[in-house]
Amino acid sequence: MADETPPDLRARLIAIALDALERGEDVGLRAIARDAGVSAMAPYRHFRDKAALLAAVAMRGFDDLKAVLLDADQRADAVAALVAQGEAYIAFARANPALFRLMFAGHDGGPPPADDNAYGVMVRRLQQLAPVNLDAAALACWSGVHGMATLALDGGLPDDATALEHAALTLIVRGLAGAAPPSSRP
Amino acid sequence: MADETPPDLRARLIAIALDALERGEDVGLRAIARDAGVSAMAPYRHFRDKAALLAAVAMRGFDDLKAVLLDADQRADAVAALVAQGEAYIAFARANPALFRLMFAGHDGGPPPADDNAYGVMVRRLQQLAPVNLDAAALACWSGVHGMATLALDGGLPDDATALEHAALTLIVRGLAGAAPPSSRP
Repeated sequence: MADETPPDLRARLIAIALDALERGEDVGLRAIARDAGVSAMAPYRHFRDKAALLAAVAMRGFDDLKAVLLDADQRADAVAALVAQGEAYIAFARANPALFRLMFAGHDGGPPPADDNAYGVMVRRLQQLAPVNLDAAALACWSGVHGMATLALDGGLPDDATALEHAALTLIVRGLAGAAPPSSRP
Repeated sequence: MADETPPDLRARLIAIALDALERGEDVGLRAIARDAGVSAMAPYRHFRDKAALLAAVAMRGFDDLKAVLLDADQRADAVAALVAQGEAYIAFARANPALFRLMFAGHDGGPPPADDNAYGVMVRRLQQLAPVNLDAAALACWSGVHGMATLALDGGLPDDATALEHAALTLIVRGLAGAAPPSSRP
């Protein structure tokens, strides 16, 4: 019994499910138990059912996305940092398409509204741009990045469009600063 | 035979499939034939298989989306017109979630690169903003709107967030004008 429930079995089951998901394989608790080399019942100590396992995989995805954004967030300039975050977000989606779709598959919808998550990494940088309406700027930024990632996964953006993506992300982020907007009638 | 293939049967089959899709019902050719009151073979005069029917439904969706954008495109001011287009795009996604997902489900990916489609309606307005890089501005605008629509469908945006969406769309569109960008270090 003891070797079926090591302290890290839960994390290991999540990692195995994540791999299976990206390979398009079965992520049922029975299949995951077999891949983990534990008894068919062992996963039930940690997950009520497949849906609970997938919810944990999605949560792990948001943790990974946060780490990816923090890793990209190295520039002093806020615009450059936010553009780099956006590029990292899109690269994360391209590298983990099944996970990305699962994360935003609508069970709870989008990132949880906590400060200590991927969304918070973006918002903290956005604050440096002193937007007049932080909520609107956050929605604009997240939507632009998320839309680009979604279009990339759905084949609407070629894999080599990174220069175009950089230019588009820069346009979006620059527009969010608190300065007066340019006239719409040039 | 004649009453099984009236000139408008193709359009009628597409309309029936569209309704069935949004109701979550079977959109196989046999079910659609039954709903249309025609023989099981009649749809095969117009569609090779279910995939061909769904492709036609998606194309109909892009036509409908174009009509919706044109209908929203009534303001003289280009920023206001583009924001209204964005709001109409998001409302279209909310009103036709299954169709919207089908349209962007990655078979060919995104809107076809023609001038005479929904994308073209947006690009013609964007040109009035004289963006320095039209391709980047178009990707930024479409991504922001598409991302907001996708987040709305996936539950990341409440249905009553339209004021916030308006503010976010305005931020994105204003940022696309050809004027010099505001400083990133206020």
